[in-house]
Amino acid sequence: MPAYQAPLRDFDFVLNELIKVQDIIPTLPGYEEATQDIFQAYLEQAAQFCESELAPLNRQGDEEGCQFDSATKSVTTPAGFKEAYKQYCELGFPALDCDPAYGGQGMPKSLAFPIMEMQCSANVAWSMYPGLSHGAYSAIHAHGTEEQKQTYLPKLVDGSWTGTMCLTEPHCGTDLGLLKTRAEPNDDGSYRITGTKIFISAGEHDLSDNIIHLVLARLPDAPKDVKGISLFIVPKFLDGGARNTVSCGSLEHKMGIKANATAVINLDDAKGWLIGEPNKGLACMFTMMNAARLGCGMQGLGIGEASFQGALAYARERLQMRALNGAKCPDKAADPIIVHPDVRRMLLTQKAYTEAGRALTALLALQLDIEDKHPDASARADAADLVALLTPVAKAFMTDNGYTAANMGMQVFGGHGFIREWGMEQLVRDCRISQIYEGTNGIQAIDLLGRKVLLDQGAKLRKFTKLIHKFCQQYEGHAQLGEFVGPLAKLMKEVGEITMGIGMASMQNKDEAGAAATDYLRLIGHLTYAWLWARMAEVAYAKLGQGDDAFYHAKISTARFYYAKLLPEAEALKASIKTGAKPLMALEDEHFAF
Amino acid sequence: MPAYQAPLRDFDFVLNELIKVQDIIPTLPGYEEATQDIFQAYLEQAAQFCESELAPLNRQGDEEGCQFDSATKSVTTPAGFKEAYKQYCELGFPALDCDPAYGGQGMPKSLAFPIMEMQCSANVAWSMYPGLSHGAYSAIHAHGTEEQKQTYLPKLVDGSWTGTMCLTEPHCGTDLGLLKTRAEPNDDGSYRITGTKIFISAGEHDLSDNIIHLVLARLPDAPKDVKGISLFIVPKFLDGGARNTVSCGSLEHKMGIKANATAVINLDDAKGWLIGEPNKGLACMFTMMNAARLGCGMQGLGIGEASFQGALAYARERLQMRALNGAKCPDKAADPIIVHPDVRRMLLTQKAYTEAGRALTALLALQLDIEDKHPDASARADAADLVALLTPVAKAFMTDNGYTAANMGMQVFGGHGFIREWGMEQLVRDCRISQIYEGTNGIQAIDLLGRKVLLDQGAKLRKFTKLIHKFCQQYEGHAQLGEFVGPLAKLMKEVGEITMGIGMASMQNKDEAGAAATDYLRLIGHLTYAWLWARMAEVAYAKLGQGDDAFYHAKISTARFYYAKLLPEAEALKASIKTGAKPLMALEDEHFAF
Repeated sequence: MPAYQAPLRDFDFVLNELIKVQDIIPTLPGYEEATQDIFQAYLEQAAQFCESELAPLNRQGDEEGCQFDSATKSVTTPAGFKEAYKQYCELGFPALDCDPAYGGQGMPKSLAFPIMEMQCSANVAWSMYPGLSHGAYSAIHAHGTEEQKQTYLPKLVDGSWTGTMCLTEPHCGTDLGLLKTRAEPNDDGSYRITGTKIFISAGEHDLSDNIIHLVLARLPDAPKDVKGISLFIVPKFLDGGARNTVSCGSLEHKMGIKANATAVINLDDAKGWLIGEPNKGLACMFTMMNAARLGCGMQGLGIGEASFQGALAYARERLQMRALNGAKCPDKAADPIIVHPDVRRMLLTQKAYTEAGRALTALLALQLDIEDKHPDASARADAADLVALLTPVAKAFMTDNGYTAANMGMQVFGGHGFIREWGMEQLVRDCRISQIYEGTNGIQAIDLLGRKVLLDQGAKLRKFTKLIHKFCQQYEGHAQLGEFVGPLAKLMKEVGEITMGIGMASMQNKDEAGAAATDYLRLIGHLTYAWLWARMAEVAYAKLGQGDDAFYHAKISTARFYYAKLLPEAEALKASIKTGAKPLMALEDEHFAF
Repeated sequence: MPAYQAPLRDFDFVLNELIKVQDIIPTLPGYEEATQDIFQAYLEQAAQFCESELAPLNRQGDEEGCQFDSATKSVTTPAGFKEAYKQYCELGFPALDCDPAYGGQGMPKSLAFPIMEMQCSANVAWSMYPGLSHGAYSAIHAHGTEEQKQTYLPKLVDGSWTGTMCLTEPHCGTDLGLLKTRAEPNDDGSYRITGTKIFISAGEHDLSDNIIHLVLARLPDAPKDVKGISLFIVPKFLDGGARNTVSCGSLEHKMGIKANATAVINLDDAKGWLIGEPNKGLACMFTMMNAARLGCGMQGLGIGEASFQGALAYARERLQMRALNGAKCPDKAADPIIVHPDVRRMLLTQKAYTEAGRALTALLALQLDIEDKHPDASARADAADLVALLTPVAKAFMTDNGYTAANMGMQVFGGHGFIREWGMEQLVRDCRISQIYEGTNGIQAIDLLGRKVLLDQGAKLRKFTKLIHKFCQQYEGHAQLGEFVGPLAKLMKEVGEITMGIGMASMQNKDEAGAAATDYLRLIGHLTYAWLWARMAEVAYAKLGQGDDAFYHAKISTARFYYAKLLPEAEALKASIKTGAKPLMALEDEHFAF
């Protein structure tokens, strides 16, 4: 397994030089103490934990997987997972960005997100246990009664309890309107819940004293569609320690994230409590879903970084062939493969996607913090709009790019990349699910184009492109940034026209939006990354001559690589979008094969 | 695991209507009996075998893998593999396209390739045992002495012995010039061979009575680079049944093709015999390599087809959400997901890549047959040139597209795609190696651009584009085919200009070719597929009204899909190529990370 080293220098660049979170975070009520020093201390501690505790467990966790004992319906996580979780709790990480009223440390997402990225790089399967738990925390914090909060939050915050999200059933994933799990009221205000949930990440394990399941189910006589779904808290152990009738029926055998227990959860008159309003469960669940989607994006980001580190180390060591223009290391049997343009293409693709993804993540984390804490309502609204617009982009674009990066890292290793012991193929397998769960990337694309862009006639999109427009105006014809600003401004203009075109076409035929969605999401992703790379180049040019030139020259080089070799995908996307829905819809369903 | 049904209708289309192999094959000396009826009978028998014997073993083979016994250094293949191989031999398949002088059936590659595709769809790990064996047959047939042929070929042809290719060593894969295995002459004309080979597919197993290793090694005082490599025949059992000192040291634990034994082969003064000229081993090995590269491409093709079949069946059954323009199946709880444009996009991508790959394969198989048997030397030379040009394209483009197709098939399944029992993720894992072995796809790209295109100043490329040009001239402005011919002619012209541009630039700086290679290979791939899809549309239009319109309309629809949604990638590739090598080479090796 490649050794993992947290990219602390790049976190510093993104947080303090590019996004400049310190200009805003300590001014937000409640985050006064989240200063740069505090950030630094936390990041270093997290880096230490991820590098020395989580990363070394990753390879073996994949081989060992989780073990299910059908007699006791219990799950054993791989060796070392429990100890690492214990240490994680002792270090206070579960409490990091939780509410101080329930034992939390009250730190912002701007700090929590880089730490999440590190966990994803080091051991994504492990990271999902606390990750899901934090989702349950958020839902109870947002929608629970004060009594529910007092009951559950302190334990979730100190990590002694963990949580899950129980949405999917065998016949319904994307289409939650089909769900069948039923909740019947008891006389004491609780409910008896019966049904089968599948694909429940961290659904059963041995890390915590209790597991708090958040379960979507239908009340009696609820409407049959998504408007008849309610959310319930269903703990594994009830108050007093009695075992609730919610249990793990089996674990799935999966392609990757094998060290995370993906459980079938059977509810058999399990005792639960309604959280939030009746029939409004989906809205409550979306509190968790949006965070989960960003978390998913960070899995793509973190795995891309891990794969980059592995591939880079290998490319510098592995000797094979000579550089095309003549030997670079004539004293060695061959040159290290990093001399070859095609190997550099793969490494730079990993690097460019990963560093832009890190910048996007920091940008969104800051917006989430502003949305949460800013005293000014319009600042909160602007931040919320940007988060809403870019969440599906972050989820899908970052996971697709992460998968590309993981595959390239494996490719750099040649045949050795296919061998499990090197760990590079595990990153591919572990990353693959991030394109599927929390709403497939196809669903993200429809969410972006349909709900986030067309539904408000492009209002949120225009707010976003105004930021880009302003940047382009500032640097139009600029000696150094002109090379980026020209193509960026052109793409922005085209995106506006294309959006208008899809909007018009889809008024006649909704399939036009459905057909364009996936291409459109990647186009917006490239617009976003092109803007972020231009901004990174802006910062880098400004910092030249101050003692760290190699770092800033690398930023400028990578920006140029992005514009030269990755951004051209936009040409394909634009051309594909313009051909509309007909090429997708013309073939009759029964004529796909003969 | 999705059931596999051999695409016999499409084989019929490709072989008899598009490539029209029957116009040529029976006119070639030796292939007089390879008539359409004979093709049909073989294809049906192979389909039956692949569907009912190989496909059912695929899923369990992945779970079971191969077992290595370190005491006996023996390997046990998964349950059923041995019996299936026995039946395969009884049916005479190992002899299919082998020389009748050694017991072969003397059938053409035009028949053998579709059968190979079926095996790859049904069970790619199994298919590699006879596949590698056929490679050993080809090398001995091409380069062995008559005595060697008499000794080895009849057994390889009847399948009682199998073969391997032993190239890679721990420190050398792509760069065979580094290899260290040594061969010392014995007094009896044989050699003592010592060294360690890795990644030896089908290197040890229980399917056959003997395993004939073809081993690259150095003679004493041989030049140190690739000009000092010789090829040796090293049988597992010597004449008389004595065990040779060549043995399996261990099996690799891999991402996929787990049911194929990837062996470390230790040679410890193993007895071997030189085959071909001393120090010309690499040329001999390339006899096998070119066939192996096409075989690799067929793995991408076959797995793409298997994934398409699985995804299509699922998309027709799985009910989730409603069609955007209103319910298609109002009597059901939801519509089958095939109504959704994005699902159709994935299915059509699989279909378009797979059917074009099948056409390319048939085209190349016919050229191989012409190269092998045509009485006219210039016909043979033309065929050989087309094969040389398009072999790296078939290997890399078909495996990259196969991987894309396999990933899309998995994506269609949503969360279920990630679960092993469905078999869709296995196809992804099994396909992944095809992009790496037999020369990574990056190496294929350099082979195409450097060796096949630039080395002869585009002579082979022009022979190929002349075929396209002729087609375009014939149908310029044509009522039905004009929609394809316009973009095809434009792309062909651009490819010529781009090739010239790269050629000029690389005279100044060889990295320019290295930097363009991967984009260039995909560009040539798209040019090839665009031509083949236009030709398929041509055939389809001509056949309309003759009783099978749905099939031909589907071809025309798929051609339109290809031009609308996949061919636009060429826009990105052209734009990327034009930016040259500098964006890849500017960053110093030591500044990729900080």
